[in-house]
This record gives sequence, C-alpha cells and structure tokens, in this order.
Amino acid sequence: MAGPGPAGESKYFCNSSVMLELTGRRGCDTTGVNENGLSYFEDYRLGATYECGSVSVDQASIVAFGKEFDPQPFHVDPVAAASGPFGGLIASGWHTAALVMRLLVENYLSAESSLGSAGLDELRWPHPVRPGDTLRVRGTVVESRRSLSKPDRGIVKTAVEAVNQEGQTVMRATAINFMLVRPDPGT
Amino acid sequence: MAGPGPAGESKYFCNSSVMLELTGRRGCDTTGVNENGLSYFEDYRLGATYECGSVSVDQASIVAFGKEFDPQPFHVDPVAAASGPFGGLIASGWHTAALVMRLLVENYLSAESSLGSAGLDELRWPHPVRPGDTLRVRGTVVESRRSLSKPDRGIVKTAVEAVNQEGQTVMRATAINFMLVRPDPGT
Repeated sequence: MAGPGPAGESKYFCNSSVMLELTGRRGCDTTGVNENGLSYFEDYRLGATYECGSVSVDQASIVAFGKEFDPQPFHVDPVAAASGPFGGLIASGWHTAALVMRLLVENYLSAESSLGSAGLDELRWPHPVRPGDTLRVRGTVVESRRSLSKPDRGIVKTAVEAVNQEGQTVMRATAINFMLVRPDPGT
Repeated sequence: MAGPGPAGESKYFCNSSVMLELTGRRGCDTTGVNENGLSYFEDYRLGATYECGSVSVDQASIVAFGKEFDPQPFHVDPVAAASGPFGGLIASGWHTAALVMRLLVENYLSAESSLGSAGLDELRWPHPVRPGDTLRVRGTVVESRRSLSKPDRGIVKTAVEAVNQEGQTVMRATAINFMLVRPDPGT
C-alpha cells in the first residue's frame, strides 16, 4: 500500500490529478525545485555532489543557541570558554547541525518530495566552529534505492559535509532521507 | 602530554592547586555536580542508566525552530502539514535533538569535566514529535575507557533515548563524549 501523500505547501502539492492536468508532466509548480534542480527521488544521482551554499555564524547566535539548548560553558560564556578545553567560545554541535540543515532544506531537499529523515549515521564534529566562521555545505549521494514496501518513494543516503573558510571539516554525517518518486504522468 | 584544562564556569574551575587546597579532595565546588551525581569520567558506570528529566514541546516552539533552521512545510505550516506525510505538524529532528541535549547538559554531562563530543552514531527519529508531546530522556553508559593518548581524560559512549508520554521512542543515538578523569588529590 502506498504511503501518505507528499509534503509540500499547498501551492506545491502535486499528488492530485487536477494539478497534473493543470501543470503538465511534472505535475508541480516548478518554483518548488531547488537551485540544484532536485525535485524527485530520481533526480538525486548516485555519486553526484551538490553544493548547498554557505552560512556565517557570529558570537551572539552561538551564545543564544547555547543558552537555549546546550548551556555548557564553552558555548555560552566567552570568559570561561577562554580558559576551557577549546581556548575560546565554540558553537554547539547541534547549532552547527541546524545551520547545515537550513542549507540542505534550501538547496538540496525538495519541498515537493521530501518525506523527512530516518536519521543520520556517523555524525561527527571533527573541528570546532568559532565566531566569525563561514561554513560551506555540500552533499554527495552515496546510496539511492526504491522502497520495497512503499513504491511511491525512494531512500537517498547523503554524505553531508560542512567545511569552514580554511577548508577544515567542521561536520560530517550520512543522512538518510525518504523522497517521493516522480509521479507517473499517465496516472 | 596532557590536554587542555577542564571546561567549567570560573567558580567550578578545578584544575588549580589553590582550588584543591581550598575545597579538598574533589578540588571543586560540588554545586558543579549534576543531580545524578556525575562529575568525572569515573562516575559514569558502564551499564548504568541515568534518568535525565523531561521536556514538553508546543506548536509555537516547533514552528519557531523550523522557521529558523528547518523550514520544511511539515515543520512550519500547520495547514500544509495537515495534508502532508505526517498528517500534521511535527518537530524538526534537530529541534528534538537540541531539547534532548538541554536535558543531558542539566542532568548527565558535568560542567566540571565535559570536554565536548566527537559526535553521535546511529541518530534516529523513529516516531514524530508533535505539539503537546512531553519527552523523557535517559542515558545508558555503553562504553567507557581511558584515553590512550591523553591520560587526563576518558571516552564515554552513551545510548541516549527520548520517549514520549505514550512510551514511544522519538529519538535514539549513541553519543561519544570526552570527560576529564578525577584529579589526583596528591598532585
């Protein structure tokens, strides 16, 4: 049995025959496609690397995130952090992950077909993120297969990497995402 | 060569001989110990499970986090989410992780000895978190060993689990943390 319908704001909702008639083969308003041209499961090519943009992080946002979610001294207190294990304030790894996610949502995941994530394997923060850093994010498709139990979707595994302005990797992980396959124009 | 000094707000900073003299064997103000009595590497007993409290999540905070970091329709738009893959609004997995982290910082990690995390393995969100859910968090020590290269610390691996009010697991992962060993009172 097919799973639930696709995610998407109503203007991108593309699982109805009315929409298919109105907008043609893709069945969708193409404004839902991200800048990498990724819309449905089939678009994520095994082995392809997609650049997902960059984000800068400042001390105020590091401290604000830390105070809300991860109030360890080296995330929230610049004075204590200076004599702490990192020799200064660093971003919570969860803050880094959240910033990376924002870029993936904007440049990699598709509002038309993303059905969420099962999780991630081997999430690592090999180098600290410090105030003023600019992180560049990219994703490489390392596995791609149709679901056996739910034929409307596929599973895409993505090696996600974030590097700072000096080329140091600050985060890496393998993300597991579910994505709708492209609707059959004949249905 | 020993690594950098311990993390900690200045009042908990316990790597100085002055502090050792002032406060005795522990070398610390014991207000730095969390409610589970976990202060240094040695306190994390292999196989022990520590309850880490609970947190409730409402729609406003789900949408706010989603808009900032994970603006997929099912995290930010209740109307679109209702016809989306989860049949309603759900929290970003990163929001869930951040809420879990807060409880770990307050009830499991030690301000005296936490040296941060290398990352996590097998991070999973097996069940969605919805507005109104209350998540209970616990951590079980699944591996504990002294560092070979840095004798001032140990590595603790923790099976972290968050369950909702109905007992459904909403997040699990194996976290990898570095923690200072208890200072030798003779040094």
